[in-house]
Amino acid sequence: MTAAAQLAMITLATEPTFAEWMRQVQSDMETALGKFLPAENIAPAKLHQAMRYAVLDGGKRVRPLLVFAAGELFSTQIAVAQRAAAAVEMIHAYSLVHDDMPCMDDDAMRRGKPTVHVQYDEATALLVGDALQAQAFVVLADGEMDAARQIVMLRLLAQASGSLGMCGGQAIDLASVGLNLSLAELEQMHKLKTGALLRASVLLGAWGGKVLAQNEILALEAYGTAIGLAFQVVDDILDATADSATLGKTAGKDAADNKPTYVSILGLPESQALAEKLRNDAHQALAIFGDKARRLRELADLIVQRKA
Amino acid sequence: MTAAAQLAMITLATEPTFAEWMRQVQSDMETALGKFLPAENIAPAKLHQAMRYAVLDGGKRVRPLLVFAAGELFSTQIAVAQRAAAAVEMIHAYSLVHDDMPCMDDDAMRRGKPTVHVQYDEATALLVGDALQAQAFVVLADGEMDAARQIVMLRLLAQASGSLGMCGGQAIDLASVGLNLSLAELEQMHKLKTGALLRASVLLGAWGGKVLAQNEILALEAYGTAIGLAFQVVDDILDATADSATLGKTAGKDAADNKPTYVSILGLPESQALAEKLRNDAHQALAIFGDKARRLRELADLIVQRKA
Repeated sequence: MTAAAQLAMITLATEPTFAEWMRQVQSDMETALGKFLPAENIAPAKLHQAMRYAVLDGGKRVRPLLVFAAGELFSTQIAVAQRAAAAVEMIHAYSLVHDDMPCMDDDAMRRGKPTVHVQYDEATALLVGDALQAQAFVVLADGEMDAARQIVMLRLLAQASGSLGMCGGQAIDLASVGLNLSLAELEQMHKLKTGALLRASVLLGAWGGKVLAQNEILALEAYGTAIGLAFQVVDDILDATADSATLGKTAGKDAADNKPTYVSILGLPESQALAEKLRNDAHQALAIFGDKARRLRELADLIVQRKA
Repeated sequence: MTAAAQLAMITLATEPTFAEWMRQVQSDMETALGKFLPAENIAPAKLHQAMRYAVLDGGKRVRPLLVFAAGELFSTQIAVAQRAAAAVEMIHAYSLVHDDMPCMDDDAMRRGKPTVHVQYDEATALLVGDALQAQAFVVLADGEMDAARQIVMLRLLAQASGSLGMCGGQAIDLASVGLNLSLAELEQMHKLKTGALLRASVLLGAWGGKVLAQNEILALEAYGTAIGLAFQVVDDILDATADSATLGKTAGKDAADNKPTYVSILGLPESQALAEKLRNDAHQALAIFGDKARRLRELADLIVQRKA
């Protein structure tokens, strides 16, 4: 055996598998999120308890995984990646809390637990969402890193969260109930509603490591757009095919709410083919990064192959 | 007449009066806010229309006035002060939109207009608030200035908005309905609910100009705390004594909602004496800044003497 082959074997033996890496990030993030949220006994205690209820002990942490996977490209420091990941996850968690409220989707179950307005009350759910959004910016603005890149990251997170990002997507979603959306309109809605924050996760992880070149930004945006849409296509497939216990939320809700989905527009087989195509697009976009993009490739695979 | 006396007269003649200065800031801010909010015709148009409805053409702009007044201390550039002021005002406006919703105060009138959930609908009001909070951070993160001070400003705004600031105060307020709060508890609630953002306004305006020394921070915090409490004491006095038409919102609401107020705890004459004492505290805190703090002094006077 050559020395190079031996080195490769050692590297293979010591590098964690994707499943191990994922569990490690998820476990570290649970600790980090716990640390970045005010403790339960700090006043106002009920608000802080409800914020922790909304964020901790649940979720697949897809966005933090994307932050860490993109962080591997440019050796982003763990402390920086943790803050970026926690910030993005808090934005995501707040959007779920508000989304579940009676005036929006009116959902009683989330991640296998009662939603925040059911467990607490509506006013608390409203404040939990508001305070989590603010806390996301506290966490990201508090970290110690190069200030110019930190500003870029704060700007990316704010843009992805606002009316030209996630909130804008929610507004289009609301307005689209009962309408016959075209595939292009459905895609535009999802590019904002879930795509914006997924793209931001990838970009934040990478900006945490260095000032990005234009071709790197474009490649990461292309990757983020592809996995963002794939995520939604698979969500629609699962909503139409899986049961509530597996999903940890109410299945078949989109059809019941008369919401347009990829499955309702394209049918199931076409939707599955689209998810595969998007996975391929995501892999293609990563070509310029070589081996360092391994975790991002694996995440694209996971997003398409997940069962819940 | 000496040359110095002549110069003083010229200065007096060319410096705008407080009323002129205030109208100028208010008018400039209306333009700036209009520019910092997405245009009505940008998709999603209904969301952007509702965001503009919530922010523009209304309000006394107390927080922007504080930003600009504090900016005079250290010659903060107008473009920097405008962004800081717009960001703070967007946070304030979002908090009013959410506060007025049926699950919170359930108010139908605000600044003499129907509240956002009445004019549009509840889901839109929820999203308007969420998107305005994000937009505040977009506006502040977008500006061009020294990145290290910009980070400090973003952190201050996020902290003042979150669960240890404004949202925390709202949570304490909610929990206090029907309770007999002590004066200390009432004060703690208001220090967060309205005080945190008023203090932040003062600090942001000053940080926009230079890196603050510790004694300057302490003096501005003391000023901000005093005018924040004065603002609330006067609010309670007006709620008990003025009519809805003058206030542009429903008068007598606190008593009707069984909410503890300064007037309900201290009575009217004691509340008026407290407002005077706080105005005096605010003036004292500004002593180290000399003449440059003139607008901050005048604002303290305005806050105590206002009739609406």
